[in-house]
Amino acid sequence: MTEGQQKSTPQDVLKQAFDAHELVTISFSGAEDVVLIDMACNISEEVNVFSLDTGRLHPETYRFIDQVRNHYGIDIDILSPDADALSAFVKEHGLFNFYQDGHQSCCGIRKVAPLGKHLTHYDAWITGQRQDQSPTRTELPHQQIDIAFSDERRDLMKYNPLSSWSSAQVWQYIRSNNVPYNPLHDQGFMSIGCEPCTRAVGPNEHERVGRWWWEEATKRECGLHIINVEEESQ
Amino acid sequence: MTEGQQKSTPQDVLKQAFDAHELVTISFSGAEDVVLIDMACNISEEVNVFSLDTGRLHPETYRFIDQVRNHYGIDIDILSPDADALSAFVKEHGLFNFYQDGHQSCCGIRKVAPLGKHLTHYDAWITGQRQDQSPTRTELPHQQIDIAFSDERRDLMKYNPLSSWSSAQVWQYIRSNNVPYNPLHDQGFMSIGCEPCTRAVGPNEHERVGRWWWEEATKRECGLHIINVEEESQ
Amino acid sequence: MTEGQQKSTPQDVLKQAFDAHELVTISFSGAEDVVLIDMACNISEEVNVFSLDTGRLHPETYRFIDQVRNHYGIDIDILSPDADALSAFVKEHGLFNFYQDGHQSCCGIRKVAPLGKHLTHYDAWITGQRQDQSPTRTELPHQQIDIAFSDERRDLMKYNPLSSWSSAQVWQYIRSNNVPYNPLHDQGFMSIGCEPCTRAVGPNEHERVGRWWWEEATKRECGLHIINVEEESQ
Amino acid sequence: MTEGQQKSTPQDVLKQAFDAHELVTISFSGAEDVVLIDMACNISEEVNVFSLDTGRLHPETYRFIDQVRNHYGIDIDILSPDADALSAFVKEHGLFNFYQDGHQSCCGIRKVAPLGKHLTHYDAWITGQRQDQSPTRTELPHQQIDIAFSDERRDLMKYNPLSSWSSAQVWQYIRSNNVPYNPLHDQGFMSIGCEPCTRAVGPNEHERVGRWWWEEATKRECGLHIINVEEESQ
Repeated sequence: MTEGQQKSTPQDVLKQAFDAHELVTISFSGAEDVVLIDMACNISEEVNVFSLDTGRLHPETYRFIDQVRNHYGIDIDILSPDADALSAFVKEHGLFNFYQDGHQSCCGIRKVAPLGKHLTHYDAWITGQRQDQSPTRTELPHQQIDIAFSDERRDLMKYNPLSSWSSAQVWQYIRSNNVPYNPLHDQGFMSIGCEPCTRAVGPNEHERVGRWWWEEATKRECGLHIINVEEESQ
Repeated sequence: MTEGQQKSTPQDVLKQAFDAHELVTISFSGAEDVVLIDMACNISEEVNVFSLDTGRLHPETYRFIDQVRNHYGIDIDILSPDADALSAFVKEHGLFNFYQDGHQSCCGIRKVAPLGKHLTHYDAWITGQRQDQSPTRTELPHQQIDIAFSDERRDLMKYNPLSSWSSAQVWQYIRSNNVPYNPLHDQGFMSIGCEPCTRAVGPNEHERVGRWWWEEATKRECGLHIINVEEESQ
Repeated sequence: MTEGQQKSTPQDVLKQAFDAHELVTISFSGAEDVVLIDMACNISEEVNVFSLDTGRLHPETYRFIDQVRNHYGIDIDILSPDADALSAFVKEHGLFNFYQDGHQSCCGIRKVAPLGKHLTHYDAWITGQRQDQSPTRTELPHQQIDIAFSDERRDLMKYNPLSSWSSAQVWQYIRSNNVPYNPLHDQGFMSIGCEPCTRAVGPNEHERVGRWWWEEATKRECGLHIINVEEESQ
Repeated sequence: MTEGQQKSTPQDVLKQAFDAHELVTISFSGAEDVVLIDMACNISEEVNVFSLDTGRLHPETYRFIDQVRNHYGIDIDILSPDADALSAFVKEHGLFNFYQDGHQSCCGIRKVAPLGKHLTHYDAWITGQRQDQSPTRTELPHQQIDIAFSDERRDLMKYNPLSSWSSAQVWQYIRSNNVPYNPLHDQGFMSIGCEPCTRAVGPNEHERVGRWWWEEATKRECGLHIINVEEESQ
């Protein structure tokens, strides 16, 4: 990551991604990464967006995803886990084993596998990750090769347009531009994931405290962004 | 339905089902049909139970299903919709089209198809339907051939042990036997289905008013029990 | 109570009260007794209504009382407890002693004393009590002398226009006439009093189970209607 | 305010207050000013605490005040508004006129008058105000003469031990010392006042945005601390 990249705006990074690749898709989690969709719709007429529907999102998040779909007039690929894999896993472990066994297996079936399958159709994807979110994201660049989901056929590029923005900048954008946002953010939620694995944070708590709070902070990646952990441990 | 059947207790009907068939499964919706599981566990050592996980249940219902699994020490088959069919449907129609187009297509993908696939492994299934629930269930017998899910290979039998019990009798059983129940029942919910398609009912309202309330009362079957409608219209 | 009285409609009883007395006031608890206000506004141009603001009502109830005030264009006397008596009581016993010591003392300060003071200005008052609410109300007449609040100067008359109506009749009136109602009724609440002393009731539970549920059913009168208990024990 | 004062810890200021005056009382709002009680109980065996019970606090706040009473084993003076003044005001203006007319009159009756009456029994009072809370509090000293509530008889001193602490410092104290806190803080609430006049704040919003949000930021004092506004405008 060069210094020049650091001074790029999120919109610059988005343009760069759209210019460099034909098949680009934006990852939308149903949280404040909605700003990427807002920016993208101002830049490009055709925007590919997907959401990982784990089957365990908050009712508010489902409503918000649909609101975004209607507000921007875009289709959203809603990706579901494989029925048989999920059924076998849940029959053996129950619906809440992550509290005992960690969230990796559940995320593997509900998020990582559907994501991997979907990304095979694209050359690049765009995420809302930020350096200020987590100890595993402090070095996050604007652009990187996603080694986890690349294959022999091609390198998959991953763009993180918001990597050097602070949470405050994201929220200023949302409020200034009247971007719709998940109503859970007005009930103490900062980061938003699956319902059983997300909680509201208290005053002056860090946002990622609300995710998989029963696990260590350095393990709070769900596997979508596993390269953050892998690269760090090299 | 003969008079003799009418006088059978729910437990009699359950025993009858277990005696008559080797492969029997109990449908558990995450609501007051938990009484069937309680009764069955008192009758038989091995109880097959399944739940249809539409991906849109209340967080409370997921917790309750897991509580029942642990309380009775049973495995529960949690059936998920086919990922590709669901993804294609939701991409085209959004996540809430049932409010405009009716609930049949959504229930078809999220409930009826997984149910049909599952029932092919059984000779009989057991449901918690009651005559007092709906104008489409007033003639519901204790036992019937399920023409909707039978095939050339065999007739599928369907047992409705609670058919002639009132809601009051079900709740008396729950309270007398300390059967665990979905906490939504203490927030005004009578009948419980998918989160966007269920609401609490007001004082002195009929329980099924809280299901698909934007549709006509005679269309409030989700397809699991479509023979109720078909037989009536003959 | 004669048979003739039993056949009177609530409206008949209201008219009777308005005709018989100059100074009549309607007690409004913020619950389904709103039907009395609706009926009274159709009968009389000037309607006196009061509510006992214990300082512990649900936020929803305060909003509902104000909604009723605006909807019917009426003033409502909102009666508060005596500041010094309350302060002394709470300093000694805390804010929740009713769970240990019973609700009578707290109701005495927050409800009965302000009520008694208010009723000295009237010749009659009107309540929403019904026979089907409680074992202490099964003999409740349409009209009675309120011995608890009468004094040497005059007998205070008490009218219970809804005494022989069922809960179902009250709710049919509310729904047929689009009478505004407390939104708590759509969250499982039947009877509504103070927030710490009221809870939602479950399916097929009796409405008064939600009031002072930690005490015996025969003691669930707050002192407003103490003559129900006194007359019974004679 | 001298530089020396600025370097005093909150505990220093508390000690100073307890040493200088015989009759000192701590104002407890039911929010994060609970740290004052925790600190005071470590310094002094006899601690005087009062709360203004406006009659419109959140149910959670009443429970929290009682929890604090029990946790620290202290009496708390719970001050209520004058019944007649309140009743007359509410009869004329309704229960929510502050949204139209501003909050000053309502706060005047429910908070300022009971406070003034109470403070006549003391020589000094202690508050949880902080400079970082509001544009009206940026110059807030550790100690000041409270001109609003002084009288001919004596000057009333007002101590603000937390004036130079940040919100983050307060919360670090709460979490490090396992101080009980209002559960509303885990639902997005920062500052907590009356229920209709407080709301949760969104991510990266300033805490006082959640108080009287329909009024200008420079008018968001309730009258308890009116000298902040008066001194500023001199």
